[in-house]
Amino acid sequence: MHFTSEQRLDDGILQREFTLGEIPGTLWTPESAAPLPLILMAHNNGLPKGESRLVARARHTAASGYAVATIDAAGCGDRPRSAAEEQARADLRRAFQAGEPVDEIFESFIGPLVEKAVPDWQTALDALLALPGIGGPVGYSGWTAVGIRLAAVEPRIAAAGFFAGGYVPHAQRAEARQVTVPLLFLLQWDDEGNPRQAALDLFDAFGSKEKTLHANLGGHTGTPWFEVEDGDRFFGRHLK
Amino acid sequence: MHFTSEQRLDDGILQREFTLGEIPGTLWTPESAAPLPLILMAHNNGLPKGESRLVARARHTAASGYAVATIDAAGCGDRPRSAAEEQARADLRRAFQAGEPVDEIFESFIGPLVEKAVPDWQTALDALLALPGIGGPVGYSGWTAVGIRLAAVEPRIAAAGFFAGGYVPHAQRAEARQVTVPLLFLLQWDDEGNPRQAALDLFDAFGSKEKTLHANLGGHTGTPWFEVEDGDRFFGRHLK
Repeated sequence: MHFTSEQRLDDGILQREFTLGEIPGTLWTPESAAPLPLILMAHNNGLPKGESRLVARARHTAASGYAVATIDAAGCGDRPRSAAEEQARADLRRAFQAGEPVDEIFESFIGPLVEKAVPDWQTALDALLALPGIGGPVGYSGWTAVGIRLAAVEPRIAAAGFFAGGYVPHAQRAEARQVTVPLLFLLQWDDEGNPRQAALDLFDAFGSKEKTLHANLGGHTGTPWFEVEDGDRFFGRHLK
Repeated sequence: MHFTSEQRLDDGILQREFTLGEIPGTLWTPESAAPLPLILMAHNNGLPKGESRLVARARHTAASGYAVATIDAAGCGDRPRSAAEEQARADLRRAFQAGEPVDEIFESFIGPLVEKAVPDWQTALDALLALPGIGGPVGYSGWTAVGIRLAAVEPRIAAAGFFAGGYVPHAQRAEARQVTVPLLFLLQWDDEGNPRQAALDLFDAFGSKEKTLHANLGGHTGTPWFEVEDGDRFFGRHLK
């Protein structure tokens, strides 16, 4: 892991950009004498790690006493994409504009993206836990599809907060019962692109004995800010 | 309002029993120099005000800086009941034991109970707000059916937390859209006696622009304790 830049933010959080082979990432840490628990934070559908809502959440969570890290996994953010991936994105845009069904396109686009992204998150996890000052345990926050796969295959994930606002491929819907860690599942009640019943069915399917659903009125980007604080409290119960 | 007993609890909360005409009640208050916001706390289906889970919630919420009051409204707790009410309760027990459908019995039992209970809660609200040290604003917590009617007819209710664990009569299902205050709706995902879909439909029906659903795995009495804290934080956003 190579740190390429470092900035002390006005809330006292240290924000460092890093590269790990081909993987670019960002790490936010508060000042702390004791080793910090770690939260991996991923944006739905592979949106760039620098997206402002993700950064705001990451900074707030770091200020609550966590190391918070995000990466652009393979195919995500500004990472190079294959011709097939570019084609899927173009198909998606066209279908959206035409008001056509998008589920099949999402499946062909997000399915492989999740398969490729999870190994990068595991690589990042290895490197982050090797850093001085980061001790774990480890939580995961954000992109549901990647989080399901990661929680299913990665025993170091101790608790997970998922945002039900992205397409979840068939494979991850089937894997949901393999997720057994404490879970906070966040749903926007009127999310334009994500059918409510599918999200409720997914919540029902998770194998976790301790799982909580939070649903708020409003569309995809309308999640109230207090849910960030509730998420911090959820992680506080399981990671501290 | 006549106080009939007074006890300083080991958490510093003052617990006072009172009567207000025929209405018996309990008031919990923390020490405070400033006038306190008030939370009316009602147990589902008219269970007695002294029930231990209600008392535990009330004390915790009072310790967070609220005056908390509960009453046994008409027909509730140990209040006298008519022959018809006693018959409905007996029918309900018999139907439960026989595994027969109970919805019609609940309707004939809880429907009139709500109609009678709400005026008593309004009487209590008048008297409580007249006490020194209680300034409002006013929140409501608990029994969904009474809360819907109270929030619909009583403009002093500024925020409400409902527990979706009791029978909601047809009249209150229809009144749900008249509830427009900020709302926290608490659901047990596997509540034996309360169909999940009916609870989700009710959440959908509320007229509130700001409404949040919290659902946790488990049966009727399995609500995790952190939901009491989440409820206090909800009221903190709207009453303080």
